Amino acid sequence: MSKSIVLTGITTTGTPHLGNYAGAIRPAIAASKNDDVRPFYFLADYHALIKCNEPERVKQSSREIAATWLALGLDTSNAVFYRQSDVPEIMELTWMLTCVTAKGLMNRAHAYKAAVAENEEAGGNDPDKGINMGLFSYPILMAADILMFNADKVPVGKDQIQHIEMARDIASRFNHLYGEHFTLPEAVVDDNAATLLGLDGRKMSKSYNNTIPLFEKEKKFRKLINKIKTNSLEPGEPKDPEGCTLFGIYQAFATPAEVEAVRQQYAEGIAWGEMKKILFEKINDEITPARERYEALLEAPEHIEEQLQEGAKKAREISKPFIQELREAVGISKISL
Amino acid sequence: MSKSIVLTGITTTGTPHLGNYAGAIRPAIAASKNDDVRPFYFLADYHALIKCNEPERVKQSSREIAATWLALGLDTSNAVFYRQSDVPEIMELTWMLTCVTAKGLMNRAHAYKAAVAENEEAGGNDPDKGINMGLFSYPILMAADILMFNADKVPVGKDQIQHIEMARDIASRFNHLYGEHFTLPEAVVDDNAATLLGLDGRKMSKSYNNTIPLFEKEKKFRKLINKIKTNSLEPGEPKDPEGCTLFGIYQAFATPAEVEAVRQQYAEGIAWGEMKKILFEKINDEITPARERYEALLEAPEHIEEQLQEGAKKAREISKPFIQELREAVGISKISL
Repeated sequence: MSKSIVLTGITTTGTPHLGNYAGAIRPAIAASKNDDVRPFYFLADYHALIKCNEPERVKQSSREIAATWLALGLDTSNAVFYRQSDVPEIMELTWMLTCVTAKGLMNRAHAYKAAVAENEEAGGNDPDKGINMGLFSYPILMAADILMFNADKVPVGKDQIQHIEMARDIASRFNHLYGEHFTLPEAVVDDNAATLLGLDGRKMSKSYNNTIPLFEKEKKFRKLINKIKTNSLEPGEPKDPEGCTLFGIYQAFATPAEVEAVRQQYAEGIAWGEMKKILFEKINDEITPARERYEALLEAPEHIEEQLQEGAKKAREISKPFIQELREAVGISKISL
Repeated sequence: MSKSIVLTGITTTGTPHLGNYAGAIRPAIAASKNDDVRPFYFLADYHALIKCNEPERVKQSSREIAATWLALGLDTSNAVFYRQSDVPEIMELTWMLTCVTAKGLMNRAHAYKAAVAENEEAGGNDPDKGINMGLFSYPILMAADILMFNADKVPVGKDQIQHIEMARDIASRFNHLYGEHFTLPEAVVDDNAATLLGLDGRKMSKSYNNTIPLFEKEKKFRKLINKIKTNSLEPGEPKDPEGCTLFGIYQAFATPAEVEAVRQQYAEGIAWGEMKKILFEKINDEITPARERYEALLEAPEHIEEQLQEGAKKAREISKPFIQELREAVGISKISL
């Protein structure tokens, strides 16, 4: 039986943080060890350009993300781990798909509509103000990422389901016009995926600037844990674990038994300082070995590059013949009788 | 002094006709022999996909267009003659440019606005009905075609000036964000370019289905000339050369002295049948040697392919290092310290 192809892209604009780790990276790495699955994980550097005009940031983020996944033990003998920009066939496919994508479909994309709504609220007279064509058409690039490798499953958050539906839509249209070339991908939503809150109590997210970087140096890491906002209940006063940032993060790292024990301590009025110490130690214990590998990798970036080159080689063994097949299908070919 | 780079793309959806020849191909081939100019002429097969979902038509058109330009004596020792799809760097550049192109700019493109106006006139409730993203975003692909080779001049019809302005706009934005990488291209409008009328008296154009293929077999060619619509003035009645399809086409092929002589015959009441004979002979004399080369090339398509491969090689000697420079500029690069 052939393995099911699971594909995930990571946009290279930020530094991996605890929320990324618990919600996406840890489960993806666990999946990379599953024999029924062939994972395609890639650095989405061409997606990064949509929102980021800072070359140094894109470069640094690519370095940090690649080092993070490798340090955490991604099994690259099974997973294909590559940089999007090392597979130029994806760009070519993007254009082929652009020609079969209805503009109306892009008009309905959530991210675009949200940007328009923001402009309308601000009361200007240009609903497209500040919106670039990358933002408008990136669902097509995403479809190309997925369809290039005929991915079966794409793990996504709820807000991303629409993109997979669009990829299916675009693939169906292409198949209808040019014959069956693409597998229709399925969105896989993990309802149990951990969503961590950040320093300020809102969802941990780069855009809120409230993140705790996963591989922050130990000392700084402890400081950040100590900075997490709590309420002003004193030691001895019973505390509610529900909605508590510290408790939520702890849950993502501890065993059910450990979680129950801490729940009990909340009822008994644990001091916030004490809880922060418990949280720090729990996470620090889990990530210290990987942090050491991460730092070593960043000191020897050629090892990261080597892995990515190997991944690109595996990816192109698929993408090169496939783009050739697609070219023939649309009428792009060598001159012959 | 370095040569000025002149770039022209030919969309591969049709068969070259007399109007293409007199208006665009003949002057472009003449320019290819000019030592001050370095021409880049390409088969725009990725543009073809926007409007054409028929693979066989795209293939046949590519073959016919390439054979036409070569048969007419394109100087490929000076001109770089290539197929767009053989230069995948153009696709990659398209995405880079997509990320710096304002959506508002595309909203204002003539071709898109015309399609929307047509939908609105038809009274439907979806102004984007039937419009694909290729039509919406092709000015970006066109900008990539031009900027990839830092073309100085792009010969265009009046209706295409806007595209060159858009390419300048996009190039300026990129240069502003990432440093000076692109030359701003200039549109070159030839006010004297011949515009021929077709069989029915409207502008000769594939979209009106009123064309006379340039290299139609002689017998069929004569038949088509005889089919050109005229008014019903009898032999002996004086005729007005202005606005006369036959006269207009004749002007594009004859010397001024010959044109004057025919103008005189119009005044004297030349019969339409006689005029058609004169016209047929004039054109047929000019194109017969090229028609023979054309037919020979179509019999030996490997010679066409060889020329295109040589052109692609020359084009990629430029595009490959340039895309590398651009990648570095936007932050897409190998992992390093």
